[in-house]
Amino acid sequence: MDNRLFVFDTTLRDGEQVPGCQLNTIEKIQVAKALEQLGVDVIEAGFPISSPGDFNSVIEISKAVTWPIVCALTRAVQSDIDVAVESLKFAKHKRIHTGIGTSDEHIRFKFNSTREEILERAVAAVKYARKFVEDVEFYAEDAGRTDNEYLARVIDAAIKAGATVCNIPDTTGYCLPDEYGAKIRYLMEHVDGLSTGKAILSTHCHNDLGMATANTFSGVMNGARQVEVTINGIGERAGNASLEEIAMIMKCHKYLDIETNINTSHIYPTSRMVSSLMNMPVQPNKAVVGRNAFAHSSGIHQDGVLKNAHTYEIMNPKDVGIDDNSIVLTARSGRAALRYRLNVLGVNIDDDEKMDGLYQKFLKLADSKKEVSDADVLMLAGSDATDAQTVKLDFLQVTSGLGVRSVASLGLDISGQKFEAASTGNGPVDAAIKALKKIIMKKMTLKEFTIQAISKGSDDVGKVHMQVEYDGSMYYGFGADTDIVTASVKAYIDCINKFRKN
Amino acid sequence: MDNRLFVFDTTLRDGEQVPGCQLNTIEKIQVAKALEQLGVDVIEAGFPISSPGDFNSVIEISKAVTWPIVCALTRAVQSDIDVAVESLKFAKHKRIHTGIGTSDEHIRFKFNSTREEILERAVAAVKYARKFVEDVEFYAEDAGRTDNEYLARVIDAAIKAGATVCNIPDTTGYCLPDEYGAKIRYLMEHVDGLSTGKAILSTHCHNDLGMATANTFSGVMNGARQVEVTINGIGERAGNASLEEIAMIMKCHKYLDIETNINTSHIYPTSRMVSSLMNMPVQPNKAVVGRNAFAHSSGIHQDGVLKNAHTYEIMNPKDVGIDDNSIVLTARSGRAALRYRLNVLGVNIDDDEKMDGLYQKFLKLADSKKEVSDADVLMLAGSDATDAQTVKLDFLQVTSGLGVRSVASLGLDISGQKFEAASTGNGPVDAAIKALKKIIMKKMTLKEFTIQAISKGSDDVGKVHMQVEYDGSMYYGFGADTDIVTASVKAYIDCINKFRKN
Repeated sequence: MDNRLFVFDTTLRDGEQVPGCQLNTIEKIQVAKALEQLGVDVIEAGFPISSPGDFNSVIEISKAVTWPIVCALTRAVQSDIDVAVESLKFAKHKRIHTGIGTSDEHIRFKFNSTREEILERAVAAVKYARKFVEDVEFYAEDAGRTDNEYLARVIDAAIKAGATVCNIPDTTGYCLPDEYGAKIRYLMEHVDGLSTGKAILSTHCHNDLGMATANTFSGVMNGARQVEVTINGIGERAGNASLEEIAMIMKCHKYLDIETNINTSHIYPTSRMVSSLMNMPVQPNKAVVGRNAFAHSSGIHQDGVLKNAHTYEIMNPKDVGIDDNSIVLTARSGRAALRYRLNVLGVNIDDDEKMDGLYQKFLKLADSKKEVSDADVLMLAGSDATDAQTVKLDFLQVTSGLGVRSVASLGLDISGQKFEAASTGNGPVDAAIKALKKIIMKKMTLKEFTIQAISKGSDDVGKVHMQVEYDGSMYYGFGADTDIVTASVKAYIDCINKFRKN
Repeated sequence: MDNRLFVFDTTLRDGEQVPGCQLNTIEKIQVAKALEQLGVDVIEAGFPISSPGDFNSVIEISKAVTWPIVCALTRAVQSDIDVAVESLKFAKHKRIHTGIGTSDEHIRFKFNSTREEILERAVAAVKYARKFVEDVEFYAEDAGRTDNEYLARVIDAAIKAGATVCNIPDTTGYCLPDEYGAKIRYLMEHVDGLSTGKAILSTHCHNDLGMATANTFSGVMNGARQVEVTINGIGERAGNASLEEIAMIMKCHKYLDIETNINTSHIYPTSRMVSSLMNMPVQPNKAVVGRNAFAHSSGIHQDGVLKNAHTYEIMNPKDVGIDDNSIVLTARSGRAALRYRLNVLGVNIDDDEKMDGLYQKFLKLADSKKEVSDADVLMLAGSDATDAQTVKLDFLQVTSGLGVRSVASLGLDISGQKFEAASTGNGPVDAAIKALKKIIMKKMTLKEFTIQAISKGSDDVGKVHMQVEYDGSMYYGFGADTDIVTASVKAYIDCINKFRKN
């Protein structure tokens, strides 16, 4: 069997239909171009009959990309297919994705129909689509709950009608990996057109029970050669299988001998773009692309990583386009991590007894402070206890609102000296940071800015994470305050204090 | 084989060691009590030797909970075990969790040791722990990469030394489900103490490749009878298997005949508590507990749900403690969803032609507006086109900062009439909302407040989601602005406009 696995990305269709994720056409083109760079084989660009905006997006994406196949979704209805054909007219490589529900639940409750009638409608739709395009994918909606024997008959008929790819969606996210894999295997064994290579099977798995990636993988192991996935696993309800997880599974397990065309070093930038444009945060513990995916904090692990990165890492962060893996010092950090951090900061402690004493002091601080900064570590080591370089926020006053221009005045205490500046800005945080930059005149670039104010009331503490690039290195800062503007400025200053130490 | 599956929650140990997730003792007790209510069998309360704070937390959690076993982590070192014993002195049911790395990578790089020496250290640790407690769990760290034959020897020896549970961690998150399941099966078949029921096997799977839940499930299917999991899947790097996913898999697939003690209706409240206390956002597309996990937005799906909830839902949101599943109208919503929403709002349109026209207008609006509110729908239907009730933000001015008390003045336009108010507050958003409540004098409770400003610069648009309870119902609001304070007020007003319509 061929070992080439085709990646069909549906971020712009299944992902984009999620509440709050809607993109305008310009944003969709931006994502489509990123997907092309990432190396996806097929971009599902929209559901053209569903709205004029979707129709137009398929047109514009077709013009914008060169190599990937551009795919448009339809129901098994002639007018849907007509509109899809029209929307694909500029595509260099085009595919129509048509289909119908095949589970008894769908046949009975949604279509009020019979198995035979549904089979006929499926065949008619594929035949009709093939009049216009050579590449037609058929989906058997809710295949996860469709009886295998009937499903095989439908797929067989769809291939005979001209389908080049047959999609077996687990629409409800209900399947378990062995069950889904067995379904794919059953079809591979019972449908002639699949064994002769006339058509391939595709997975399309939802994540309602956290099994989307595992089901997709099980499908591939049992013969599917296309996976329908999304960036960050977004999509209807709990989302779809994640492109990044499937791509990294194949990359980390070379012995499986399954190859995709994905250039994994583009994964992280694409993930960030999609998260930002669609306003869909990626949780810190998301596999492959979460903020903590490559962070090591427990003492046991840090010690291992420092001795040999291979002990705990199976992926290199660079493989997915992330620059470095960061070690954060907390109450769980061991002596080895503390010693390493001190070395990085230029302090070498050879005396084991001194190190023990220092480590006890460190643990006490970490218990109260949660994350221990480089400045704290240096202070503990006594080398920098009265460090005069620390930048402190002296005062801050910001005025903003609707119909007024935001303005901030801000005072810093640096080495005991006081500095003041004021600036306007697009919002209160922008104004405050512009004022701050008038005092700290370094070439700093704010790369990432995340406010997490998940709270039960408006007076709860807001927490801000920032990432600032300075002199080619990345610095992470954190700030917390009941005032989110103050928290943001504190996070920025935390970054500045970190790079002033290095 | 016994069908009872024990749930071992390590949110307070593996989860709590994540950067930024550290809790103080009071917060840990709060989580431990929630876990007890949820019905977990074992609470891993900490790693007592790692810090004085951890030691104290184990003491206090031991006092606070009654039914669950309280477990303390140690290395295979006598002093670790001594401290753990001391920390567990108040526990009604106690367990010590001790162990050592067994993969060649760990033996060679971390311990600079040999297989035989590691086996001896494992046995010595279990024997030593059994002097103090009857329930001893042994972990074979990095078991995922440990040779099965050697692993079976270690597990056999640990059980003979007195271990009651043996934990097989996939420490690096590298295993695939079939591989992990085969490892569990190999042990079940080659270690006498497991087939005779002297001890049980436990899974502990990490999510680096998105396989934690699938690996855990595969372990259970092959004979493991304890799962180590966390709320929201938090934990080192990409986290652990999610308690909620495993619990719901067993609940939704009754034929598996595996029973846990989890009271699933406590899942959602516990998830919210952990997310909030640990400052770890749950992404909207997280399985079971994400904001969108039960939301249906595509037209095809909405139609199905409205015809018969069973068509697309395998879980009832109530099963996990969520009150209702919300249908959000977007450009993907079909006629059925629009008609249903109009019915809810008291507008019945029987004329199909009129409905068609309305639907076209709706699609145009949805293309530009992304999410269509009830007010928009009513406006389209013409029943409320000149609705004078809409609350609009007229002006807003907020001053805040460090060393100043936040103050806001705000103007609203309601039914064409202008209202003004001012208030101080803990922060700019708090001040603005207090001012707003002076005008809209209803008993509204802000239940949830999420700012997602994931951006590349300080002048990017901030997006705010809010959830306000009023008169027993929950309303969702959204606001976007370059000024996060203005965005927050807009989101609150969006909620108000929604309940004024109902």
